[in-house]
Amino acid sequence: MPARLIEYGEASAQVRAVFDDIKRVRGVPDVNNFWKALANHPALLSRTWESLKQVMAPGALDPMVKEMLYLAVSITNGCAYCTASHGAAARKAGMSEEMFGELLAVVGMANETNRLVDGLGVPIDAQFVASAST
Amino acid sequence: MPARLIEYGEASAQVRAVFDDIKRVRGVPDVNNFWKALANHPALLSRTWESLKQVMAPGALDPMVKEMLYLAVSITNGCAYCTASHGAAARKAGMSEEMFGELLAVVGMANETNRLVDGLGVPIDAQFVASAST
Amino acid sequence: MPARLIEYGEASAQVRAVFDDIKRVRGVPDVNNFWKALANHPALLSRTWESLKQVMAPGALDPMVKEMLYLAVSITNGCAYCTASHGAAARKAGMSEEMFGELLAVVGMANETNRLVDGLGVPIDAQFVASAST
Amino acid sequence: MPARLIEYGEASAQVRAVFDDIKRVRGVPDVNNFWKALANHPALLSRTWESLKQVMAPGALDPMVKEMLYLAVSITNGCAYCTASHGAAARKAGMSEEMFGELLAVVGMANETNRLVDGLGVPIDAQFVASAST
Amino acid sequence: MPARLIEYGEASAQVRAVFDDIKRVRGVPDVNNFWKALANHPALLSRTWESLKQVMAPGALDPMVKEMLYLAVSITNGCAYCTASHGAAARKAGMSEEMFGELLAVVGMANETNRLVDGLGVPIDAQFVASAST
Amino acid sequence: MPARLIEYGEASAQVRAVFDDIKRVRGVPDVNNFWKALANHPALLSRTWESLKQVMAPGALDPMVKEMLYLAVSITNGCAYCTASHGAAARKAGMSEEMFGELLAVVGMANETNRLVDGLGVPIDAQFVASAST
Repeated sequence: MPARLIEYGEASAQVRAVFDDIKRVRGVPDVNNFWKALANHPALLSRTWESLKQVMAPGALDPMVKEMLYLAVSITNGCAYCTASHGAAARKAGMSEEMFGELLAVVGMANETNRLVDGLGVPIDAQFVASAST
Repeated sequence: MPARLIEYGEASAQVRAVFDDIKRVRGVPDVNNFWKALANHPALLSRTWESLKQVMAPGALDPMVKEMLYLAVSITNGCAYCTASHGAAARKAGMSEEMFGELLAVVGMANETNRLVDGLGVPIDAQFVASAST
Repeated sequence: MPARLIEYGEASAQVRAVFDDIKRVRGVPDVNNFWKALANHPALLSRTWESLKQVMAPGALDPMVKEMLYLAVSITNGCAYCTASHGAAARKAGMSEEMFGELLAVVGMANETNRLVDGLGVPIDAQFVASAST
Repeated sequence: MPARLIEYGEASAQVRAVFDDIKRVRGVPDVNNFWKALANHPALLSRTWESLKQVMAPGALDPMVKEMLYLAVSITNGCAYCTASHGAAARKAGMSEEMFGELLAVVGMANETNRLVDGLGVPIDAQFVASAST
Repeated sequence: MPARLIEYGEASAQVRAVFDDIKRVRGVPDVNNFWKALANHPALLSRTWESLKQVMAPGALDPMVKEMLYLAVSITNGCAYCTASHGAAARKAGMSEEMFGELLAVVGMANETNRLVDGLGVPIDAQFVASAST
Repeated sequence: MPARLIEYGEASAQVRAVFDDIKRVRGVPDVNNFWKALANHPALLSRTWESLKQVMAPGALDPMVKEMLYLAVSITNGCAYCTASHGAAARKAGMSEEMFGELLAVVGMANETNRLVDGLGVPIDAQFVASAST
């Protein structure tokens, strides 16, 4: 059931254009397996890359922080591939092993206390309801 | 089934000592409902606070980043209380609404692409396996 | 979107037969909202009750332990209704508040260390692979 | 820890009867590993097959749609085996690669927007509460 | 912590353009709370709507099937808002109560058997690995 | 991306002290891979072991029940390593194969009915709200 990985040499012009853009934006010689697997579904490949490029572009959050947030979600979802690839990306963006150790500790604690909250049925504090996001 | 919230005035000496330490470390006049609910189980209250204090203490990661990681996990787990309380904590630590919008975008994309990876059964790229954490 | 709750007085003969069996087996005067909601889909109601009756019947595991396992899963899934109803069932089956405190601590720790394992990509120890279940 | 796979030749009469029924209903020469693993627990094997046979039988939903729903849940849960086996079943029931690409896109988007809803704490619209299922 | 809901009258031109497009495509007089909450983050609102419009557009899958897949994921994630809104959308697209009962049965069974597979550590059958997606 | 496993011979004095305590408390000649992987982050290793030792110590709950609760959470989270290691620990603490079969049945049913509750939007019964945990 693992999807076939589409290599550049056998890809359609539409898929090659996306691969070229990924290589250009990221400055890498080849795309990761994720993109080669997505290439079985060109419309999905194209939309996912356009969204990801926009979401991970420089903004109010530091690029390393964005990769660490991605990593925290991937660990929580138990996605081994995602944890490997975004762990590598976060390290490339500057995450040290000491930072990773602290990230792991936070992710672990958050998953622990989330379950304590669920188990105890804690009502939301009045001040949290009041301080809406605007 | 929601746990009874233990107020300071009715708490045991052991629970009061933890409440006092939380108020001192965080500089707040009262503790959140989470701690009042945990107080039904003093050993759990004490161990959770000691762990959390250590995990969230200043370190290699910026305190605002730590709170944003906590928030990313809480959103992924669909824990409404945790999202409310750590959203408030992240804002207090400096997260702007623009940063929160980007955090949401990263968390949303990560949950989307995690499922694409799972559905396609993407094998881990050789370079991610090679680059072990040391 | 919450399902309409079907009361005994308005239920079909098929649904009433299931409700009667639930009340008989559990020794309760009325069924919980879960069953009244399931009654919108009689075939699902009937199959779910037959499975649950079989799964929760006396066996190798103590009934209180079975309810605590149910509760641990419900907390992990963040299902508020399930946590409330199986928390009540576990207490009825003998779970003390001290036991519940320890259950919460185990569920919390398990969710924490599960994420640490995911984040570190820990390979399964040789002896765990060797000691297959038979 | 992987369960031992019980082959037909070594199975008890009770297990063989279930295996025979699976092979008859599905028109296959042998059962999948899932059933061989479940055979370590004959009561669980029997109940699971009876439930699954009833749930996946022809009804108001098209069999291919049922398999695609199963697949969507399996992807969301990150269950690699389930994604592989129900992906195969859905293809056998008529799912084309184009359909699978769209299924992946819907599952990905649903997981993304579910997290946006959780992160924003969106209140349920009045008309959704009003339009209960009956 | 719930996000403030941005109404049309107070929205920026950029947000109004998205709201207008949603109303036009869906033929509704007002947008759901989800979009009003997302409007606090205009870039996220715009990208999410563009993606969703593309993903849910007519294609190889029937629109009702797409909505049922969305609903199956939302139920699995325990997202109450998403379950309410996509339950309403699926009904509008033709899902009968009988179909919903079968969807619930499939989603329930899938979540049950996913856990049995995880607990037994079932290895992927050779034929599922062989039958890659192309 | 899998973390490097730190063996005793190459470990720091701080890490060796934790390894020695694990071996002493558990009466084993070597620690599992989990601890060798955690050893890349000494503060995380130390805090995790201290918490785990306290949580799994004799108390109101039987040690076998604690391991079964740990196992139920690990299965629900789809954590293969955790399911293997805590499956082994539960068997060592007395869990028979018959008990494991019943545990699987409960975990499976709980995940099934949790989704039925989510899909139906079942409101919490009045008596469950009333019977708070104290």
